[in-house]
Amino acid sequence: MAEQKKLVEAITPMERDFAQWYTDIVKKAELMAYTGVRGCMAVEPYGWAIWENIQKILDARFKELGHQNVAMPLLIPESLLEKEKDHVKGFAPEVAWVTMGGNEKLPERLCIRPTSETLFCDHFARVVHSYRDLPKLYNQWCSVVRWEKTTRPFLRTAEFFWQEGHTIHETAQEAQAETERMLNVYADFCERELAMPVIKGRKTESEKFAGAVATYTIEAMMHDGKALQSGTSHYFGDGFSRAFGVTFQGRDNSVCYPFQTSWGFSTRIIGGIIMTHGDDSGLVLPPAVAPVQVVVVPVAQHKPGVLEKAHELEQRLKGRFRVKMDDSDQTPGWKFAQYEMKGVPLRLEIGPKDIAKDQCVLVRRPDRAKLPTPLDGLEDAVAEQLDQVRRILYDRALKRREDMTYDAHTLDEMKEIADTRPGFVRAMWCGDPACEAKIKEVAGLSSRCIPFEQEHIADTCVCCGRPAKELVYWGKAY
Amino acid sequence: MAEQKKLVEAITPMERDFAQWYTDIVKKAELMAYTGVRGCMAVEPYGWAIWENIQKILDARFKELGHQNVAMPLLIPESLLEKEKDHVKGFAPEVAWVTMGGNEKLPERLCIRPTSETLFCDHFARVVHSYRDLPKLYNQWCSVVRWEKTTRPFLRTAEFFWQEGHTIHETAQEAQAETERMLNVYADFCERELAMPVIKGRKTESEKFAGAVATYTIEAMMHDGKALQSGTSHYFGDGFSRAFGVTFQGRDNSVCYPFQTSWGFSTRIIGGIIMTHGDDSGLVLPPAVAPVQVVVVPVAQHKPGVLEKAHELEQRLKGRFRVKMDDSDQTPGWKFAQYEMKGVPLRLEIGPKDIAKDQCVLVRRPDRAKLPTPLDGLEDAVAEQLDQVRRILYDRALKRREDMTYDAHTLDEMKEIADTRPGFVRAMWCGDPACEAKIKEVAGLSSRCIPFEQEHIADTCVCCGRPAKELVYWGKAY
Repeated sequence: MAEQKKLVEAITPMERDFAQWYTDIVKKAELMAYTGVRGCMAVEPYGWAIWENIQKILDARFKELGHQNVAMPLLIPESLLEKEKDHVKGFAPEVAWVTMGGNEKLPERLCIRPTSETLFCDHFARVVHSYRDLPKLYNQWCSVVRWEKTTRPFLRTAEFFWQEGHTIHETAQEAQAETERMLNVYADFCERELAMPVIKGRKTESEKFAGAVATYTIEAMMHDGKALQSGTSHYFGDGFSRAFGVTFQGRDNSVCYPFQTSWGFSTRIIGGIIMTHGDDSGLVLPPAVAPVQVVVVPVAQHKPGVLEKAHELEQRLKGRFRVKMDDSDQTPGWKFAQYEMKGVPLRLEIGPKDIAKDQCVLVRRPDRAKLPTPLDGLEDAVAEQLDQVRRILYDRALKRREDMTYDAHTLDEMKEIADTRPGFVRAMWCGDPACEAKIKEVAGLSSRCIPFEQEHIADTCVCCGRPAKELVYWGKAY
Repeated sequence: MAEQKKLVEAITPMERDFAQWYTDIVKKAELMAYTGVRGCMAVEPYGWAIWENIQKILDARFKELGHQNVAMPLLIPESLLEKEKDHVKGFAPEVAWVTMGGNEKLPERLCIRPTSETLFCDHFARVVHSYRDLPKLYNQWCSVVRWEKTTRPFLRTAEFFWQEGHTIHETAQEAQAETERMLNVYADFCERELAMPVIKGRKTESEKFAGAVATYTIEAMMHDGKALQSGTSHYFGDGFSRAFGVTFQGRDNSVCYPFQTSWGFSTRIIGGIIMTHGDDSGLVLPPAVAPVQVVVVPVAQHKPGVLEKAHELEQRLKGRFRVKMDDSDQTPGWKFAQYEMKGVPLRLEIGPKDIAKDQCVLVRRPDRAKLPTPLDGLEDAVAEQLDQVRRILYDRALKRREDMTYDAHTLDEMKEIADTRPGFVRAMWCGDPACEAKIKEVAGLSSRCIPFEQEHIADTCVCCGRPAKELVYWGKAY
């Protein structure tokens, strides 16, 4: 390693080729590797450690709210998939089918789950009998498979990792509240922990999940102005219950259909982190999910006392932060570039001059601010600077989104923006899917969401001029 | 719930029907449910919580030893599976084949991983170049699918959950040491955390993993005297490296083949916990992995001050233990039976008389010992009693194993033991697979392992009378 990697390999500048810049980071930061399996990724240790940190935080939040983890089967019999008509229409074209078990042809095809509503419904039908069995607030962490034609690391892969929450409730109101509550959990997680500002809203009819009454979404803006749908939450009404024959005895002894929700958050968010915070030096990780939060780099480490002091600081910080010490024989310059590329939020430099002054130098990854810091009280200073990193990342991303969001009042204006300025376009809509389709066709923009925070920026639909119903965010999307 | 379950449903006594007793516990303790998918289980919240506790402890141990988690694909192209001849022979007959993606027939069949050696080798071939890249100590938590004909909850299911470690090393010695180290991790985990004594040893040639040079195993004895293979660790030599073309540049610049290992531990251990510690009242859980370690049951909870005191104790214990408080309107008797059935290691009863004496009563699940305990210092008393539970469970299981292990010197004797007394049989073996096969045929016993702790109990093979090479444990197995 030492000799092979004397220079940290250069990353293609974002301005020159955004897609290549993205791929370079994925590869050089060793987040994932290609495999011999079409469209499937091998998530490498550094990439998986980010996902594990995401899992830990989200899982704790789910459990605090009363959710329980379970594990449903990987496979769905075709007859089960077919029970809900909209659902099967949406997913059947993109599933992988198991047709043989060993050397025998199966009597019925099984698909690898593309999502697990059907399996949870089958389970609910077995275990839900009375209103006393409700609600059930279930979640599972797993992978799913969707036979995508074109794939990109993290953003779109045949197999991806996620959590899928599935809940079942006595009343529509309760299920509706759960749907919104979980969207808020995702939004809060993205904004607080990942430093990614998001727009919360509802999907239009044509963009909603197959089988849902309503789909809620959080939409984030990437460096290139494109949208990333970062988490979704679905309200099913009692449609799935009816399709799967899930019933319960109500408080008045009548037979009732329960109301359901589902909500999911996936490894595509790692693509979102890269494209929200990364720069031309590489990855930039929000401290909450960074596998290494602080890297300790000794300077002039052959000088007496330097390594000892560096180890001492590493030990001091270890209990409270994820710390890595690099005392390899690479040059400090190489190490600086290497851990910048890996997106480590904070670098701690310690050399003879620092030791003489009883200080070290903290360097923040996003703005490279160099901060001489007294060793006395170092732990609190590190905590403070990690928080600063988070704030800088959030503020930057929010400013970018604000700078790259435009209001449009006519279709011509929309098209002009779409052609010349990347970003989101806000425009009023009459609610007619025909207008939505025309905007897509003419301006190349899809509806991202109908934001919860509505504004009235015009009286008429941007497309047809009829009375407008609501404000919509439009954009190009990953 | 309240009205429906006035009585905790009875569990079939172990003596009457062991298999039914097992199934009753799985079902009534709500560990898993059957599904509409052949041979696949739905692991319910209580069962999954046990697995999560197992995962947490093992994962921390793996990481302490330098292992990193990754995620390889779920699917294996047929051509990749076929690269190692013994391996494909062992697994191809029991895999599920994906032949269609959406509506299109795939150009090459893909199987759902039955284990992932082939995928790790494919990855290693891409990322290992120099001795400096070694070792790689990887692990993944996932599910695998084996198309088993007959299935039993946890013990044998088409899909099951596990971790599979895969490591690759510069030298045979290092890989060999890793194989033994990980077997020891499993053994230590079983004995210390699960209170399950195990025999550590090597599998015979005919029982080893498809493609391995050597397979090590830990074997535990169940209530009924049958063996459960509870964890295995495989040494591959450089066989997989050669088959998959994994090479590295050695220290002397020559092209070398690295040495590999793999090791796995699965949800079948939950079946092992049930059949090692359970009794006719239900499940008995070792405290380290019990979802609820202490259940607080208020007695005469309508009396003033009882619920307040119970809640106060719950709060006190919460920071240190997994505690559940049941202040539902069920009777204390129902609650006692219910949490015994669920295997909660410790029950804390608190009623007016206890409060008057500034005490509570702790009841240990395995021996039902009732221990009046001063509230002052309660936390330490609970910790002490949880440890007692662990010791009682371990000692009981060990005594049972010792009582049910027999030495045999002739095949007749072996057959007589096998026909009349359930348990393990220790007997000397010449090393010839023909004798192993004959013992299986005549006495119905398979070789469980060649224990690391050898004893010389006779000079000649129990079967053929030729000079004996080693002591072997024989038994019937799950």
